[in-house]
Amino acid sequence: MTARFTVTYHVRAEASAIEARTQAIAVEQSVEMPLAAIDDATVLMDILGKVEAIDHIKDETFAVRIGLATATVGQDAGQFLNMLFGNTSLHDDVVLHDIAIPPELIAAFGGPRHGIDRLRQRLGIAKRAFTGSALKPQGLPPDRLGMLAERFARAGLDFVKDDHGLADQSYSLFADRVRACADGVARGARATGHPTRYIPSLTGSLDQMRTQAQLAQSLGLDTVMLAPMIAGFATMQALVRSFPGMAFFAHPSLGGAARIAPELLIGKLFPLIGADAVIFPNHGGRFGYSPGTCRQLAKNARAPGGGMRGALPVPAGGMTLDRVGEILDFHGPDTMLLIGGNLLMARERIIEEATAFARLVADHAYRRDS
Amino acid sequence: MTARFTVTYHVRAEASAIEARTQAIAVEQSVEMPLAAIDDATVLMDILGKVEAIDHIKDETFAVRIGLATATVGQDAGQFLNMLFGNTSLHDDVVLHDIAIPPELIAAFGGPRHGIDRLRQRLGIAKRAFTGSALKPQGLPPDRLGMLAERFARAGLDFVKDDHGLADQSYSLFADRVRACADGVARGARATGHPTRYIPSLTGSLDQMRTQAQLAQSLGLDTVMLAPMIAGFATMQALVRSFPGMAFFAHPSLGGAARIAPELLIGKLFPLIGADAVIFPNHGGRFGYSPGTCRQLAKNARAPGGGMRGALPVPAGGMTLDRVGEILDFHGPDTMLLIGGNLLMARERIIEEATAFARLVADHAYRRDS
Repeated sequence: MTARFTVTYHVRAEASAIEARTQAIAVEQSVEMPLAAIDDATVLMDILGKVEAIDHIKDETFAVRIGLATATVGQDAGQFLNMLFGNTSLHDDVVLHDIAIPPELIAAFGGPRHGIDRLRQRLGIAKRAFTGSALKPQGLPPDRLGMLAERFARAGLDFVKDDHGLADQSYSLFADRVRACADGVARGARATGHPTRYIPSLTGSLDQMRTQAQLAQSLGLDTVMLAPMIAGFATMQALVRSFPGMAFFAHPSLGGAARIAPELLIGKLFPLIGADAVIFPNHGGRFGYSPGTCRQLAKNARAPGGGMRGALPVPAGGMTLDRVGEILDFHGPDTMLLIGGNLLMARERIIEEATAFARLVADHAYRRDS
Repeated sequence: MTARFTVTYHVRAEASAIEARTQAIAVEQSVEMPLAAIDDATVLMDILGKVEAIDHIKDETFAVRIGLATATVGQDAGQFLNMLFGNTSLHDDVVLHDIAIPPELIAAFGGPRHGIDRLRQRLGIAKRAFTGSALKPQGLPPDRLGMLAERFARAGLDFVKDDHGLADQSYSLFADRVRACADGVARGARATGHPTRYIPSLTGSLDQMRTQAQLAQSLGLDTVMLAPMIAGFATMQALVRSFPGMAFFAHPSLGGAARIAPELLIGKLFPLIGADAVIFPNHGGRFGYSPGTCRQLAKNARAPGGGMRGALPVPAGGMTLDRVGEILDFHGPDTMLLIGGNLLMARERIIEEATAFARLVADHAYRRDS
């Protein structure tokens, strides 16, 4: 018997058509050819996707479970995504909903190398939620970003991350920006005694990202961020392997959430390939994820199972100071709060505002409703 | 004045809300923070996305045009996609519809390095459409795939490509498969005198793909395939630069066509970053693209403008021999016909069937309706 892992798709179809449609997905995501043309018994037995269940959800929507052969993935995270949703992403009646991650893939991809527990150790935070903000806007020169980074660090925030729009632009080259921001955070951290971490955003090809991560390492940084859907899963997989001391934050850019369930893509797949923390658009902000989606996404990230470390959920995307209590009650302390633009609204009062943010998180008395 | 390029999004909104929604997209895809918190005049003038037009399409759908600053892209194809649709992909009311590619980005990314004309030169084909088939199913050992490759070559097809599911799996390692298939095609080509090309599919990280492309090169191959949405745009950009002699076929896997218009993603963006040929699911096959979408996609690929070479459109995805005439009339001769599974249905008669395919294309008398 070949090892298989179960993939759940949500499919829009009439009841009379769902069996044939499910079988067609099983074929598309495995052998991708007419079965009548296959004369190899092993392929039909061990490689062809296998329909495991078809459940009616409501109206013309079904949850279908298909067992894909683990051997088709090999050791490659890119091929993994290809097998999960490659051609089927081109069909607009199907959403990739969930997978059951098998031990073979955990062994291949490894999950978070540091995860929540080690992030707590690094920052010396026993119980409370983490805090973070973002360096914006793109277009500022390195010294301005460095000054802002210093202010956030002086406020005692735990993480100061690059905005995901900061890349390697002529007006703010990666090397210049990262030096300026690392220096800024280091100055702030020396002033407070709190080991605030700066998180540069890696961009470009694997070669470029590797050079960037090496520079970050040489500056004493131990955390970086990338967007797996932009970079490619295989790129992230390679980086995570090459920099075992680095903690990786995953940014959801290009997450195309309408077609791949965010609970799966951000909550499960990003951690599987090595994200130690996953940034996602929290409900009630600029993005449309529901509270239920956010809760499940965070739960998936924290408890990936199979012996993997938990990844830190980072609700973000238009969060405000007046929501800190509510977000903490909703998500609990194994969470990092990321407030970007709304802290920046304080302009020259940025240190006071960020300090207030840090205090709110430190002093919060949790109400249990999550 | 900063250089800008125009991005068109289709947005679902009520008429009373569309102006604010468009402005919000312009902010999200540039500075990603409240404007009131920006105190740098240069950022507001030169970096902030600029709403250029809002046109009503029908009902509650609008076409909105936003000018993004070219400087925010830098030289990185990944960052380019990030700027086009990074966070906005997470909003389900927006489709990335089109862009006007500016000369700065053509200079940065280069477009197809070989394109239709050089593919014609290599194959010695003056006018007719190209033919191709795919090696399937995954799960077959290398020698079986090599035998199939030889048969397709003996039939006189122009291209024999790996199925996009073939990766570096334990039952068929890349190096073994590519040697077997290159040998098979070479034997077939010697028999016919026609210079049939084998197209291996590159998978994994940039490092792995580079090793694979080097192996392909050492075997005398001059064409490869990859899936830009799986590999990452920056990965493709780096490979195209590193292997100027290789022609690149782009596979649409993970194209998520419902959220990024395929005319744009496959027809324009893949060529821009160096695809010489773009495979897409043709209308009337297994996928849901309309004839209008396919026609526009192919037109975009062939005539990318700005001095770029034309990329070869490759309609595929469940094509059959009895549709060859119709497809050729629809798409014209600057096209490669790719028939995979349906040729394989012929099983032991595969050479005769593939030969008939090659003849149909060679002998076709075009009716002008495209």
